[in-house]
This record gives sequence, structure tokens and C-alpha cells, in this order.
Amino acid sequence: MQSFWNEYPNIETKLNQVNDKIQNSVQTRNVEFKKVIDPVIENRGKMLRAAFVLIGARFGDIEEEKLIALSSSVEMFHLATLVHDDIVDESKLRRGIETVQSKMGKDYAVYTGDFILMRSMMLLSEYDLNKSNIKMLLKSVDRVCQGEILQYTFRYSKEATLMDYIKIVSGKTATLFALSLSIGALEAKCDSKTCHLLEKIGYNIGVAFQIKDDLLDFTGDEISVGKNTQADIIKGYYTLPIIMSLKSDSNGILKKKLDKIADGIDKDLDVFINDKKALDKTIEIFDRYVKKSINLINKLPKENSSEKQILLDIVEKLVKRTY
Amino acid sequence: MQSFWNEYPNIETKLNQVNDKIQNSVQTRNVEFKKVIDPVIENRGKMLRAAFVLIGARFGDIEEEKLIALSSSVEMFHLATLVHDDIVDESKLRRGIETVQSKMGKDYAVYTGDFILMRSMMLLSEYDLNKSNIKMLLKSVDRVCQGEILQYTFRYSKEATLMDYIKIVSGKTATLFALSLSIGALEAKCDSKTCHLLEKIGYNIGVAFQIKDDLLDFTGDEISVGKNTQADIIKGYYTLPIIMSLKSDSNGILKKKLDKIADGIDKDLDVFINDKKALDKTIEIFDRYVKKSINLINKLPKENSSEKQILLDIVEKLVKRTY
Repeated sequence: MQSFWNEYPNIETKLNQVNDKIQNSVQTRNVEFKKVIDPVIENRGKMLRAAFVLIGARFGDIEEEKLIALSSSVEMFHLATLVHDDIVDESKLRRGIETVQSKMGKDYAVYTGDFILMRSMMLLSEYDLNKSNIKMLLKSVDRVCQGEILQYTFRYSKEATLMDYIKIVSGKTATLFALSLSIGALEAKCDSKTCHLLEKIGYNIGVAFQIKDDLLDFTGDEISVGKNTQADIIKGYYTLPIIMSLKSDSNGILKKKLDKIADGIDKDLDVFINDKKALDKTIEIFDRYVKKSINLINKLPKENSSEKQILLDIVEKLVKRTY
Repeated sequence: MQSFWNEYPNIETKLNQVNDKIQNSVQTRNVEFKKVIDPVIENRGKMLRAAFVLIGARFGDIEEEKLIALSSSVEMFHLATLVHDDIVDESKLRRGIETVQSKMGKDYAVYTGDFILMRSMMLLSEYDLNKSNIKMLLKSVDRVCQGEILQYTFRYSKEATLMDYIKIVSGKTATLFALSLSIGALEAKCDSKTCHLLEKIGYNIGVAFQIKDDLLDFTGDEISVGKNTQADIIKGYYTLPIIMSLKSDSNGILKKKLDKIADGIDKDLDVFINDKKALDKTIEIFDRYVKKSINLINKLPKENSSEKQILLDIVEKLVKRTY
């Protein structure tokens, strides 16, 4: 996290406070449980969602303590869904450390996620937040669950369209980005036009973020797929490059291959994309969301402000991201 | 459910309204998801927790609509934890119908539980409930998670005491019973002494309820264990009769047998309790909680009222319960 935010000391300082708040919020007397919870919290990553809450709030005015709590809650929501995601994905590692589900079993991970979710709500309930903002927050988490369910519904489908993909990504990723960037602003009594702009910026960055994630797993000239996508393919989760590739799969070779993999007949997961066009098309879609984000950021008030610059920098980092 | 509440038409009518409210609260546009959610809601059981909210509220005064929403939320919390419990227990059936985790996989069940939890919170957020009551509600669900985690921590432990058991049961069962019976009363602005009494009654009934559950699986003269307890034993969850039996296991026969089962060496799970004393001791503890419940109910205001009678009837049904 350090390297990502050290250009913005104001945000970095606040994120450290957020991190302390999160650590205080997940206290438990159960020593064994503490040993499981602590690494989840300490392994904090870039804290993008928490930072978005902080950045959005700078377009209005809000009490420091309330802001830290709100930002912590949103990040905790995200952490809880990560713990549950790891159950679904059977992930062994998350940000380089062993996941709860891998270390303690799925059983433990279910309740650990629930626990973090509850503590996040409890933290929220301690502050006098605007009721409609709380509703919006709950609705967003609800959409995350529904996005995940929708993704599951589309498993093994070779007919998924770009629209279906965007719908899934909206739920599982972009909604929480949109919420993060707008909820701080809303609570800071920022005008509704700006709040709405921030929401849209968060949404577009969120979609771009997920597409980039999908793209990063396709590397080198052979357009072979990385380990993450291989695991996804076996489970029937087809990312955007594959959806695009299926569109131009006129001879049905890829479709047959996916069926064989699903049936466990074909174990060779190495090369997947039939032509580079599918990848180019995916990059084109990614660029579209990046451009839209930049256009919307430029429409924000506070000309030449650091908050606008931070958002533009984040988008730039996202474009350049290679890890 | 019909047979359980048909002696109390007032409660029954309201429970039907609660059921409608729950069904409305889990609406989703995802048709496939709807097919999974609906049976979870329809398969409603006795709705004890929802009924407790209604009964508690009768000791004060509360708007009908708010009461139905509160009762629905509490029941939904419980339903969400059931869906997650089934993942942990790998249960195939719940109240005679196939569980979400068995039908759709653990993946789906994780998000289904999260979804019901979120919808429960969203329902709550629509009503102007007392803030400290919401905090109490969240704290209770938090305790449920921690109770489950604690139970997990004690797996395979042959040193668990009655106190440890009660601590686990407090979290995973009794806390939500205590909340259910007191939250309706609190929201109905009932005096604090009565609310506190109701909370304690709920707690004691909850503990008795769980002990009865554990007892019911030990049947017949041979004191052999039923299928549920057998599955628990393999996973290292030892219920009260086993904990009691371990206490008098001076020659260490049961301890060795449990170790062998944990290691997969011994497959014979039929007879478990070394002497009937352990079972008698468990029944004695059950009786203690039953008596305490009855004493507390008698201390409630509203002499000869139907609400007091309903609570006494529930305890009586619990004692007589053989299924």
C-alpha cells in the first residue's frame, strides 16, 4: 500500500487511521479467532475503496471521525466479501498470504466473513449517518451478492454477451467502487450533481479495473492464460477475453475445447484465444471505460484540485498496471 | 408451523403477515436465483424467533407495521445463518427439503446467506427503529458468528466443560432467542425491568432448546446416537451428553474411541455413552434451564395474560418435544 499512496501523504495518513479503526473494530476475546482475523486485516492491499470514500468526501465537508468510520466500514464490507470469495474460488493465497478458507477450512471462513460484515455494520451504527446513505450502502452490498450469484448462473455459458459480462461486473466490482466514491461525498453534503458524477466515475473505474484484471491473465505473444484464468475456466467462469473469443469462434473449436475441459477430458489449458482480435477487442472495451472515467473526472468541480488529480492518477496507474 | 400456532390465532395471523413480508423482502429479478431463494423462505418451520418478537412486543405498545418488519428481520437473520450453517454442516436436508448448499453447491450458499442477511438489514433500515435496539440486534448476530467460531475452536477437545458448552450454546442459539423476546418489547417501549426479564427468559429457553436438540439424538435403552450426532462426532463436535460422558470416562475408553473415529480408524459410531448417568446429568441440566425459564415467566407482569400463558406453553412443548 505504501508505494501506491506515498505520493498523497494526506490520503496515506488517513488510510493509516482507517486501518487502525478496522483493527479496533474486529477485536474479539477468542484468542484463536484473533489469530485468524488479524492477518486478514493486516494484509490490507491498496485499500482503494477506503481511499475512494476519503477522496469523494473532499468534495464536501464532513467530520473527521465520521469519515474514518465510514471509510473503514466500506473497506470492511469489501474484506468480508473477499473472505467469502475465497471460499467460492477455493483460493489458497490472497495478496500473497494464505486465505482463511485454505488455513482453517470453508466452515471457518463462512463465519469469519459474516463476523467482519457484522462488525462493519456495528461500526456504521455507532455514527449518526444519513439514513438514505445507509440504505444506499446496504443496497450496494446486496448488489455485490447478486452479482456473484449472476456470475454463477452464467457458468459454462458460451452465449454470454458483453452486456451480460458488464452486468455481472457491475454487481461484483463496479457497484462497490461507485458507492465508495459517492458515499463520502453524500455524507459530506456535497451537491447532488457532483455526488452523481462521482458515482459514475467510481462505476466506470470499477468496470475498467475488473477488465484489466481479466486482461492481465493473458500474457505474451501466444496469448496463453495464466493460472487464475485456468482455474476460472475449469469452474466455468469465462472472462471477457474468452467471451470475445467465443464470438469469433465460427468453427466452434474454442466452444468444443471448453466443453471438453468442463467434462475433464481435455487437461491442456495453455492456449486459449483463437486469434489476437478477441484480446484487442477486450482492450478496446477497457479503453472505453478508461476514457469515460477521465471525461467524467474532468467534469468535476474544483478545477486543478488535488482530489481531481488523484483520481486521474489512479486511472493512469490502472492503465499501466501490469501485476 | 400450522399445528404449532393454531391454538394462538392472533400470533398465527401475524406470523402469516411476517411470512409475506419476508417473501417480499427477498425479491430478485434473477429468475434462477428466485428458484433457490423461494424454497428457503417457504420452508418456514415454527418461526419461533419471529413469534418471540411478536410475543415480547405485547408487553408494550408498538405500531403494527413496524412490529411485522422487526419480526421479519429477526427471522431473516436466522434464515441466513441456517443457510450458512448448512455449508458448515454439509447438510443435505433442512426441514425435509434439500439445502441450498446441497442443491447448488457451497459457492451459491455463501452468497445466498449473505443476500438474505443484507435484505434483512435493508428491511430494518426502512423503519425508524430505535438506534440502540439496532445496535443490540447487530451485536446479537455478531455473537452468533462468534459462537459458531468458538464451537469450531473446541472441535475434538475432550476437555470441554459444561461452562464451555454453555458459552458456545449462548452464542449460537440462546443469544438470538434472548434478542427475539426482548427486542419487540424494547421497541414497544416496555419498561426496562420487563425487557430484561424477557431477555433472560429467551436466553434460558434458548439454552434448553439446544440441550433438547442434543438429547433427542440419543434414543432408546442402548443410548446409541442418531445420524446427526454421528455426523457431528466425526467432525469433532461433541454435544452435551458426550461432554458429560467424557467427565465420567475414568478408564479413557470413550476418549480413545473418539480419537480413533477422528483418525478414521474406528467406523462404528453406534453406542457412545458409557453409562446412563451422563444422559441423566444432561437431562438434569436441561430441567434446570426449563425451571429457570418458568420461574422468570411467572415474574412477568400482566397476571393471567395470554402472552404469559403462550410462553409457558412453549416451554411445555419444548419439554415434551420428541422430534
